[in-house]
Amino acid sequence: MHIITRKLVTSNDSKIVMLVADGLGGLPLGPGGRTELETARTPNLDQLARRGVQGGSIPVKPGISPGSGPGHLALFGYDPLQYVIGRGALEATGIGFALQPGDVAVRCNFCTLDREGNISDRRAGRIASEQSAALVDRLRAVRVAGVEVFVEPVREHRFVVVFRGPGLGDNVLDTDPQVTGAPPLAPVAADPASRRTAEVAARFVEQAARLLADQPHANGLTLRGFAERPALPSYQEVYGLRAAAIAVYPMYKGLARLVGMEIVGDAHTLDEQVDVLEGCYDQFDFFFLHFKYTDSTGEDGAFDAKVERIEQFDACLPRVTALEPTVLIVTGDHSTPSFLRSHSWHPVPTLLVSDCCRPDGNNEFSERASIRGGLGQFEARYLMLLALANARRLGKYGA
Amino acid sequence: MHIITRKLVTSNDSKIVMLVADGLGGLPLGPGGRTELETARTPNLDQLARRGVQGGSIPVKPGISPGSGPGHLALFGYDPLQYVIGRGALEATGIGFALQPGDVAVRCNFCTLDREGNISDRRAGRIASEQSAALVDRLRAVRVAGVEVFVEPVREHRFVVVFRGPGLGDNVLDTDPQVTGAPPLAPVAADPASRRTAEVAARFVEQAARLLADQPHANGLTLRGFAERPALPSYQEVYGLRAAAIAVYPMYKGLARLVGMEIVGDAHTLDEQVDVLEGCYDQFDFFFLHFKYTDSTGEDGAFDAKVERIEQFDACLPRVTALEPTVLIVTGDHSTPSFLRSHSWHPVPTLLVSDCCRPDGNNEFSERASIRGGLGQFEARYLMLLALANARRLGKYGA
Repeated sequence: MHIITRKLVTSNDSKIVMLVADGLGGLPLGPGGRTELETARTPNLDQLARRGVQGGSIPVKPGISPGSGPGHLALFGYDPLQYVIGRGALEATGIGFALQPGDVAVRCNFCTLDREGNISDRRAGRIASEQSAALVDRLRAVRVAGVEVFVEPVREHRFVVVFRGPGLGDNVLDTDPQVTGAPPLAPVAADPASRRTAEVAARFVEQAARLLADQPHANGLTLRGFAERPALPSYQEVYGLRAAAIAVYPMYKGLARLVGMEIVGDAHTLDEQVDVLEGCYDQFDFFFLHFKYTDSTGEDGAFDAKVERIEQFDACLPRVTALEPTVLIVTGDHSTPSFLRSHSWHPVPTLLVSDCCRPDGNNEFSERASIRGGLGQFEARYLMLLALANARRLGKYGA
Repeated sequence: MHIITRKLVTSNDSKIVMLVADGLGGLPLGPGGRTELETARTPNLDQLARRGVQGGSIPVKPGISPGSGPGHLALFGYDPLQYVIGRGALEATGIGFALQPGDVAVRCNFCTLDREGNISDRRAGRIASEQSAALVDRLRAVRVAGVEVFVEPVREHRFVVVFRGPGLGDNVLDTDPQVTGAPPLAPVAADPASRRTAEVAARFVEQAARLLADQPHANGLTLRGFAERPALPSYQEVYGLRAAAIAVYPMYKGLARLVGMEIVGDAHTLDEQVDVLEGCYDQFDFFFLHFKYTDSTGEDGAFDAKVERIEQFDACLPRVTALEPTVLIVTGDHSTPSFLRSHSWHPVPTLLVSDCCRPDGNNEFSERASIRGGLGQFEARYLMLLALANARRLGKYGA
């Protein structure tokens, strides 16, 4: 679609605000019950539902439960089956590491090696994050000629390594043998373009082993998910939009950065996020505002807490609508029903308000209302086209 | 999608039951009327509709009326535009012939040749099936070096030939000239890999002509639709499911066999089919149960008879729900409105019940209710993904 989108995109003074309540969609706890969104008191969303058009957004394809990566790529208008963020790149993105084109990121685990060099614990006894961070700091002493090496802690036994330099392919096999009683594998390139990466990785492991030799548990390491920064065309290129991301958590800042959004502000609460939105409103055309807690409460199976978070989200809306954006979208990257305690495949209630949307007669915003919504059920990757169209930023296709 | 499906599939103890009422969807006989399904008294389906989620399944694409082959392939999760069952292979499948990889199946017609060898009747006076079967039996005497030849009767002037042996391509042109007054064409290979097949077919025709020389009507034959068994990945490979097919008619057994289902039991009535389901319930993960008569009554234009068949189908449901399958699906491979007396393109009312489906507030199962259903309108090829998701057999896509 991007080829056509690029051709049709025009420019104007419109403003598009996309509010993403992570994991918004839900399920009733039992037969005849209501979902979290249906339970929550949401006067502002319901008011918007009267003016707007809603529908059910299918994150990837029917039945597919997406992670945050594909979930957001789809909302941003990137086909999540075409654009894949490799594990290492996602891990680096998730901790806020700004990957550059050509970088190769790797997920690493500390592990325990016995005297013969065989792995006795693949997670180094799940050492504490602080201890792990100190060891990661130690590994920053590793030097490989011709390559910059970045080592960053994640959590417990997990950390990230990024190699930066010319000629580094990312097709290198995992060194984790997936079993105990065997040594870590040597890094092996699966194509000629990745040979240098495998060599660099081997040098890294070698020096790391020396630096960790005195450790009782974390005296070894395994490397997995070698991945370059995915080649995603930017919001500016595809949509001609100056885009701002207002997120609290590194993962979502990272995902926004991958599509060329500018990360704005340093908010910690939803109110602060709206402060940031107000503050930068004149400088951008598109605003992605990410609200995390509808997902995390869902993942915890905390139905009532998710209801509260939805009400908190609803309460921020008057400040957003006061800005009178040309297009206002409320959606989620996927459903996270408390009932399932996990991301799910269920369509996400999605609301679009503009002066030229076609209202659908709904007077509330909910899973049930979205079934009768004017957007029908649609794949999330089309949402940006709808946003652009409603902002009058898309020209006619064909004469 | 299969590439991704394979990666995401996990295993557990869940049971998925897919009930296919062939040609289920219908039309009203006139303005303001009800469809067959809406006319039928279906207390059990309506009860399930309260617990489940429904929608309209589009067999192939909007407006496309499928045959049984593509209709079922789509329900089984195989893109019917990508996976095509050639005519010969479908005909062989339809009579229950177990095609093996590499076999080439051909639809044959007996025809009448005049003294000059020109076709005077392309259907040999539509000779009776019994007579035809006796001639088919005669043709079993044909021998071609290096190739096994199977000849099987179909109906009236139609029969099937299958060539089995190494190096047989299926790209051979039809020998039916499609007109009378001309001789049957010689079998011509359309690619080098099919040269041997054309030679084998020529030998077959030659010997058959001698064996039929004494016949007043069926003294010749034409060959059409040369086709190999389609290369369909199996249910086990793609979904990790041990799948059972419980069907009465050979065609549906054959289609199920093509995707690696095991044909279970030898039922002749719906009640017997449910007996089989109960009997093999512990041995499989997935059950395809095919009910033919909603289609055949539709094809006959017998509205009331179709209503009765739907009520009969409804009556069997308590025995199925008593098994408490993790996921229960009720659908059809296409619509067969009595009004049209044929397969049609209309979406098929489709119902899915599981403990984690999102109920849509419907309290009946019908074409009208399915429009307001939570599954929306979706392509049939995604139904298996929804089944697997609801059975918690699909992991998350991307992190």
